[in-house]
Amino acid sequence: MKNVLNQFRDYLLEMKQYQHVSALLQWDLQTQTPENGQERLMELSDRTAARLFQYATAEEYGRMLEELSEPQQFERLDPAMQLTVRRLLREHRRLLRVPADFYNEYASARTRSGRAWEKAKRSDDFSLFAPHLDKVITLTKQYVNYMEPDADPYEVLLGLYEEGIDSETINCLFDEIKDGLRPLLAGIAAAPAPDLSALEGHYDIDAQKKVQRLLLDYIGFDFASGAVGESEHPFTTRIRFGDVRLTNHYLEDNPISAMFSAIHEGGHAIFEQGIPAELENTAAEQVDLMGLHESQSRFYENILGRKKQFWIPIYDKLGELLPQLKQVPLDTFYRAVNLVRPSMIRTEADEVTYCLHIILRYEIEQAIFRGNVSAKDLPGLWNDKMEELLGIRPQTNAEGILQDMHWSDGSFGYFPSYLLGSVYDGMFLEQLTQELGDPDQILAEGRIQEITGWLNRKIHRYGSLYNSAQVIERVCGREISAKPLLDYFRKKYSEIYQL
Amino acid sequence: MKNVLNQFRDYLLEMKQYQHVSALLQWDLQTQTPENGQERLMELSDRTAARLFQYATAEEYGRMLEELSEPQQFERLDPAMQLTVRRLLREHRRLLRVPADFYNEYASARTRSGRAWEKAKRSDDFSLFAPHLDKVITLTKQYVNYMEPDADPYEVLLGLYEEGIDSETINCLFDEIKDGLRPLLAGIAAAPAPDLSALEGHYDIDAQKKVQRLLLDYIGFDFASGAVGESEHPFTTRIRFGDVRLTNHYLEDNPISAMFSAIHEGGHAIFEQGIPAELENTAAEQVDLMGLHESQSRFYENILGRKKQFWIPIYDKLGELLPQLKQVPLDTFYRAVNLVRPSMIRTEADEVTYCLHIILRYEIEQAIFRGNVSAKDLPGLWNDKMEELLGIRPQTNAEGILQDMHWSDGSFGYFPSYLLGSVYDGMFLEQLTQELGDPDQILAEGRIQEITGWLNRKIHRYGSLYNSAQVIERVCGREISAKPLLDYFRKKYSEIYQL
Repeated sequence: MKNVLNQFRDYLLEMKQYQHVSALLQWDLQTQTPENGQERLMELSDRTAARLFQYATAEEYGRMLEELSEPQQFERLDPAMQLTVRRLLREHRRLLRVPADFYNEYASARTRSGRAWEKAKRSDDFSLFAPHLDKVITLTKQYVNYMEPDADPYEVLLGLYEEGIDSETINCLFDEIKDGLRPLLAGIAAAPAPDLSALEGHYDIDAQKKVQRLLLDYIGFDFASGAVGESEHPFTTRIRFGDVRLTNHYLEDNPISAMFSAIHEGGHAIFEQGIPAELENTAAEQVDLMGLHESQSRFYENILGRKKQFWIPIYDKLGELLPQLKQVPLDTFYRAVNLVRPSMIRTEADEVTYCLHIILRYEIEQAIFRGNVSAKDLPGLWNDKMEELLGIRPQTNAEGILQDMHWSDGSFGYFPSYLLGSVYDGMFLEQLTQELGDPDQILAEGRIQEITGWLNRKIHRYGSLYNSAQVIERVCGREISAKPLLDYFRKKYSEIYQL
Repeated sequence: MKNVLNQFRDYLLEMKQYQHVSALLQWDLQTQTPENGQERLMELSDRTAARLFQYATAEEYGRMLEELSEPQQFERLDPAMQLTVRRLLREHRRLLRVPADFYNEYASARTRSGRAWEKAKRSDDFSLFAPHLDKVITLTKQYVNYMEPDADPYEVLLGLYEEGIDSETINCLFDEIKDGLRPLLAGIAAAPAPDLSALEGHYDIDAQKKVQRLLLDYIGFDFASGAVGESEHPFTTRIRFGDVRLTNHYLEDNPISAMFSAIHEGGHAIFEQGIPAELENTAAEQVDLMGLHESQSRFYENILGRKKQFWIPIYDKLGELLPQLKQVPLDTFYRAVNLVRPSMIRTEADEVTYCLHIILRYEIEQAIFRGNVSAKDLPGLWNDKMEELLGIRPQTNAEGILQDMHWSDGSFGYFPSYLLGSVYDGMFLEQLTQELGDPDQILAEGRIQEITGWLNRKIHRYGSLYNSAQVIERVCGREISAKPLLDYFRKKYSEIYQL
């Protein structure tokens, strides 16, 4: 037993080193590689993906996994190793059904499609992206079909990002949210809009980067275990234990966008940085539970970041870095970051209409995987759904279907995670308030680290040892429900808009 | 024949992909990896070095090299492939004499020593670095002794960085320079110093980065084939064909330092970017001729960058980015960038006393490799030699022996390249003036790209197809001589200091 386990650990470490290379290549490609170096870097990335596929499908590896999963051996493993064996054996069996050539073609198509999307978005030209998107859709369907030939493909995809939550559960939650938001949004639309003209102006991007540094320090991002870069679309990536990186993008006429992206990505990163060394090189280190992950980024971004009290301890420092803000009272800033109105871009939407942006993408993903809609029809479908759900219609594809990178790299089934994250956040907020007291007071007194400490003790330090439903049960003692989120929205925005 | 050659090309491409990974790891380590991620990244780097060693010493590879170097096959190869076979066969035979375990230990010690040096420099604590330096010295001696058991170790090291130039040649050139500079420096020391107080002040680092962008664009760095980062010590690295990167560091009280580092590294990068696609994946793509390489960086930095006419087309733009410069007449700026006076830091020295900084290092390297001086005695030796050659004595090791990274990673024998580069520059300047006309006029009229074009046609486009002595012969039609450099110094500084 000892022998197999040690062998297995060595094998995991070798795989981890290829994953480390792979993560760095992706980081470099998205943040640094110049135009003329991209093709060769993508080839290298393809080779690394192919090597990892070999590792994950090797006979020797399968034998170790089978041996370790036999009951009398399995019982003696610690929980993280049990999870590792269980999860990797399932993945191994799935990948064994995928032909290696197909897998390599799929990985390569995803990388290239990501580059094509970036160019298409920059030049607002969907035609540059459409053939790549069609290819990625086709290959994703094939991939899922290889892995789980008897299952519904979209359910398999959902499971890749949030194990244990199926579309039936999502439908229930999302329908409840759609219904619950309708009267609230109608009330807000009828209320007078705040005057935010004080915020208009040009905000120096270097100054915005200094604000980002301030915000990340404030919420508890550890720069000794992380780094920051710049990319077309903000993201967070675990390069390796001790090295968690995030990116941002900056708008000259809008400093709020980058602030909230920084807080959002910072939330992801704090989760990753909170996973302890004991879980290193086990499956529990890798949190593929994206609903849970988004619950943490969105807790910082929305639940904390959009409270007035979050800003009280730092608003003066903000004004030093962005002098224009000295003319903006905190109340106006607070109204600006909670301005609820239909808008085109998901990542810049307020937390209420944001839910509808996700529901739109969830419905389109179903149209792709259950209705066989192809790329060329997606811009129109997108725009129609925007009108239906948000009452506005994009005038360009850059503010429509091209805005997000997710589909370009085949991450279908990821989007629902964002809204699931908010649903969990409603529950976490209730529970945290019960255990720690009023978060408004905690934040106003500059004790935000107590909240981070609570999230770490309750969630981060377990990595993915428990799936989202289990985490909710352990932390909140009950089943997943959208009610706390809706209650939170109603209470907060009734006050703000005096409904 | 065709078959072996194709096999060999495939093999080179595989090695190139590992070199690509290796270059990216080094780049990341020096520009991005956070503190807590460094250990794991260094392990990965060690593994990659070990893999490359396996490639370079594989039997199969040796057989291909031997076969391709047989006369009737060799004659049919194109010049770049002939060079490749010749150079790689020599390297293969050398590395076969190095035990793999030793090689891996050596690679690992160099990476770790680099990190230790960075910390030691930052905290001005030589004791953090001394044990690493001793280890690197010992291992370098062993390494060279394995490779060439019958040769003088320091000659072997010199040959790694400038093939075909031995220490006898260097001694002649450097002695001539030492003698030639003595009266010039005495004259300058006796002349009145210019008033440069107008330049004093605080220079925003973000603004300095914008100046860097301007300078790199101006001299012809291609951002579609390159990128820029920040590190403790500026450097340039070829990541892969189409991807050449440089770094810089910035001082808040001195904008000139980063400007000239940018121009220097930009010169290296323009050389690398000028190597054509035909040479990709041959030995000619990799320019290990560091004297020749430094001749290009130093041509931009000194010969061009320290001319008044270089700045005429861009000085107004500079003032827009660094408003303090608007108060500084170009004449004052010109005097500042040509202020000749003994100083502690090589990379910030003027181009004249710079020569003595190199001679100091060259003499210390000989003390290490021929006199067996160990790390603990080096700070004292350094300081004594500073007094002897420059008449000043460092008060800290940070401004003494800790200032340069080269020895930390075992690059003994590299330093002479800088001064050899200047020697070549004196000759290139004479030749360019004969062929293109007065460079002052070319620069003043904003036609700097004609000079870059000349350097590209004469030098860059051959990569390392010819060694430095051959390049000099081809470009200037005569042997290496220090006289043109000394003439250039005398003429320029007699005018500036009215000697």
